[in-house]
This record gives sequence, structure tokens and C-alpha cells, in this order.
Amino acid sequence: MNDIDILVSEVGPRDGLQSIASVLPTATKIAWIEAQAAAGCREIEVGSFVPPKLLPQMADTAKVVEAALKTPDLTVAVLVPNLRGAEDAIAAGAHKISIPFSVSETHSLKNVRKSHDEMFTEIAKIAERVAGIEAGKRPHFEAGLSTAFGCTLEGPVSEELVVRSAERLMDAGVAEVGLSDTTGYANPEQVKRLVRKVQAAVGKEHITGVHLHNTRGLGLANALAAIGEGITTVDSSLGGIGGCPFAPGASGNIVTEDLVFMLEAMGLRTGIDIDRLLDVRTIVSDALPDEPLYGFVPDAGVPKGFEHAA
Amino acid sequence: MNDIDILVSEVGPRDGLQSIASVLPTATKIAWIEAQAAAGCREIEVGSFVPPKLLPQMADTAKVVEAALKTPDLTVAVLVPNLRGAEDAIAAGAHKISIPFSVSETHSLKNVRKSHDEMFTEIAKIAERVAGIEAGKRPHFEAGLSTAFGCTLEGPVSEELVVRSAERLMDAGVAEVGLSDTTGYANPEQVKRLVRKVQAAVGKEHITGVHLHNTRGLGLANALAAIGEGITTVDSSLGGIGGCPFAPGASGNIVTEDLVFMLEAMGLRTGIDIDRLLDVRTIVSDALPDEPLYGFVPDAGVPKGFEHAA
Repeated sequence: MNDIDILVSEVGPRDGLQSIASVLPTATKIAWIEAQAAAGCREIEVGSFVPPKLLPQMADTAKVVEAALKTPDLTVAVLVPNLRGAEDAIAAGAHKISIPFSVSETHSLKNVRKSHDEMFTEIAKIAERVAGIEAGKRPHFEAGLSTAFGCTLEGPVSEELVVRSAERLMDAGVAEVGLSDTTGYANPEQVKRLVRKVQAAVGKEHITGVHLHNTRGLGLANALAAIGEGITTVDSSLGGIGGCPFAPGASGNIVTEDLVFMLEAMGLRTGIDIDRLLDVRTIVSDALPDEPLYGFVPDAGVPKGFEHAA
Repeated sequence: MNDIDILVSEVGPRDGLQSIASVLPTATKIAWIEAQAAAGCREIEVGSFVPPKLLPQMADTAKVVEAALKTPDLTVAVLVPNLRGAEDAIAAGAHKISIPFSVSETHSLKNVRKSHDEMFTEIAKIAERVAGIEAGKRPHFEAGLSTAFGCTLEGPVSEELVVRSAERLMDAGVAEVGLSDTTGYANPEQVKRLVRKVQAAVGKEHITGVHLHNTRGLGLANALAAIGEGITTVDSSLGGIGGCPFAPGASGNIVTEDLVFMLEAMGLRTGIDIDRLLDVRTIVSDALPDEPLYGFVPDAGVPKGFEHAA
């Protein structure tokens, strides 16, 4: 991170693609990942190790990881829902493994059919498995606190429960926790408050990232609030691919192009070249002509005289 | 302002409607203004006093002002380009008169065919005219620093020139200056910096408002940055009406619905009821079925368990 200020972690090939029915061919996924890495993107969540029956879009994740690992200077991240997925991720050689933990237990039960206690047990098993891997080859294992800012089923989620869950996840052996606004419920004040609380509970070095959705248009404002509190990794998705099932005009994740523009314009280095990033869209739109791509900067272009952060 | 924290100043009937070719009937404008005031909106820029030949959409501004003045608890604002317009605004009885001053002189010459010196002279004349009105009836006269964050013609705009212009405008006799991101070029860091510089130059009490566009999706993040520096008035437009001619998917102004949601969710009182605000959209969309209305919150709805700021 010495030559960048904020790590923009691209989650489009995972979060974006798993939200749409169309299956992007493996070769296209790889072309996308390679082009975006060439544009300067340092970390990409390339897929998830979930049962292909549930998410056929992710059935080729092992192959995608294999190709992504050959891309220079790229941290290859994957998502797993359980130990079984983690074993696959480890076998594939992913650099970073994330597991979502729903702070709303109702959401957890509905989404992965596991209670909080069952999740902590599962995560502890994965942590133990990861710890057994020799240091140079050991993946970074982190847990994302899903529905941390509210749940479409439960409504408001207790901040104390978020903090306690973060502590229990650290106790279970994860290297780091992240805050996820799965539902697009967050507001900047809440982001600020919750980042501070979790930092106080687990230490700043154990919460460096946020995963925000743009469902209510507050994605960038929330990212700004998080960065103001010292967060250095922000997830986003190229073209907001995948959209938001509840909001026809809204991207799901923050749009990478808009996020990179905001950060670079503010003087925060991302390592990403915007023009090259905008070119990457063609790869996705050519392969998925029926899927809308979102973003303001792609339409409006960068301001006249715009310069990347130096 | 004792019972609200942030004044959301609705500019849709002026900035929004003047950007589209369709002419909204006078009765519909009035219905919109009345409904939005009833939803809790305290200030509405209801039109501009410009030659009807140039902007036929605004030809009925005097009638709209007359009706708006009967609406309880509403500050009736108008925009004027020159002394002639200001005379009309004074005759109509507007509470607040704003004049745009383009910090980019190229933009000024192209837009109103006046140099900076000519604008200062014009503004001083208006200020003198306003000062001659007896205290209880005197409108609030302010100047908006247009293109303060960059210009589509000149590119970057000197921050020193923004500050110097603010000082000269105060010297010319305006009660207040505002910062306008006419081009949607602003980023949060720049907003923060420029608000501070202008505050330092003219005093915090003489710069309370910002007018931001959402061309590059940064509108709410920029508003957040401005509020963080003590700004208490934020312009926005219902449904982002008018859009942005350079960006097909983008609203021009910040969308009022999204702004109000962000502020209320953060605990900042606007006085506006979101459900009633969302209902106002129907008035505009029924009358202008071919004009797209924007906004994320209108599509996604407010989060489950959402409560207004108390």
C-alpha cells in the first residue's frame, strides 16, 4: 500500500455476477480480471466457492482463480460460505478468503441456514485450517459483518451486536473483520459511528475494509465517511454490475468508476488509471449486452483538466 | 432554523424546469410548490426573472411568486441575471433574490455576456436598490459563485479567484455568497477546502449554502463534505428534474428525496416528511410524462424501521 492510499477492491466478478442470471463465460471473466488489473486494480474478488447448483455463475471459480493468480501484482480474493468452500479456495491457491457473517441472525438462518453459534463454529474450523498452512502460503482469512447497518428482514440491527460479533469473529481466529452494508441501509453518520466502535473493540488494524451498496444513492457518501475514519479498503463493482433487485435504476455495489474518480479527484491514490478502467466496461457489456451497466462518470466523463492523484 | 438542522432549498421549479424544453403550466408549478411546502420544505426557488424569449419556461414567474407568497412558512426565492430581473423580483415581493456570478470569466461572457467588472457593477446596483427597501420588506440578496469548482470551458478554476470574487461580491453589497458546482466537477476534498477558504475570507455567517450537481455521482458526498464544514443550506431538485444534458442517466441537481433521506437518516432535521415528499413526484410526473425523474430512494424506498431525525 505504499504507493496507493486506498485499495479499491473489485467485487464485480463475484458480487456482481452472482446477482444476475446470465453466466459470463470463463474466458470473459479472465479477460475482465486481466484488463482491470492492467488498469491498476490491485485486488479483485474473482468468484465464490459455493455449490454450482445454487450459483451456476460461480461454477468455474477454481479456473478463474488459477488464471487470476498468473496476473502480476494482483491479490486474488474469493468468497466462501463454509469450510467446504474454504477447502476449495485453499486448494485453488486464493490469496484472500472472505466469509460473510450475517449480524442479523434471521438473515443468517434464511441465507445460509446457520445460527450465529453454528457460524462461529464453522469460522473457527476454517481459521484453524488456515493457521495450519505454512506462513508464506497462508491466505488472508477475513469475515464480513453482513447486514451490519440494517436488515431487510429484521430492520435496524443492534450496534452492540455488530461489535460483539466482530469480537467473537476475531476470537474465532479470523485475521480481520469488515463491515458490509448488504442492504444499502447505511448512512454516513452510522458508518462513522460503527467503524469507530468496531475499531475500538478489535483494533484499527483488524478492520480496514467496508463493503457498501448504493441502493439508496448514499454509497459514495458512506465510503467518504468510512475513509474519514481510517478505512483503507473499499469494495466496489465495475459498472455496478448486477444492479439492485429492489431498485430498478440503482446499481447494487458502489460503481468502481465513480469511486475511483472520487478518490483520485480528492488526491487519494488508487493506482488505477480511469481511462483504462472505463475501457474495461466494453469487455463486460459486449459479453452481457442485456445487463445494464451503471455509473455517472462513464456517462459524463472526467472533468476537463482532470488529473489523477500524484 | 431552530427546529431544523439543515435547510434543504428546493430549486426544481427554477433550475430543473429551465433545463427542459417542456413548459410546466403555472397551476401545476403552484400545486408542486404548495405540496412540497406542505411536506415541510421551508425554501423553494420558484422561478427566475429572465427575458421570456430566452426562457419561456420561466415567463410566469411573477404569478408563481404571487401564489407561493400565500403558502405558510415558505421562503420564496428567485433567481435573477441582472438589475432588470431584480426589479421584477422586488416588485413581485420575493423573499430571497439570488444572482449567479461565474467565477470563470469565459463562462460569464458566454452565459450572460458580461465581464467580471460589469457583473460587479450590476450586482452593486442591485445591492443598492435592495438596501433602499425598508427593513421588514427587504429581500435577502445573495450571489452564487458559479463554476466555483471548475468550468467546462476553462477547466480548473483558481481557488484564489473564487475567494477574491467572494470578497468583491461582499464589497458590492450582497448579504451572502454561495458556492455552486454548476458543472458537476466538485469532489469532497475540494468542497471542504473551498468552503473553509471562503469562510475565512468573508466570515462563516456570509456563506451558509452550496448548490451542487450530481453529474458525476458525487452530489451527496459533496453535500456531506460541505455540511461537515458548517454549511447549513443545500440546494436540490425534486426527482433531479431537468437531468444533465451531458450525462443521460444523471440528474442535474442533487435529488431532493435522496438528500432528505441522507440527512434525516444521519439525525439531521430537515423538517421534511419523506413519504409526503415522495408523493409530490406524482404532480410533476403526471404533468411531464416524458421527463424522467431520478432518485434512488424513490425506487428503493426507505429502510425498514426508518425514522426521521428527532
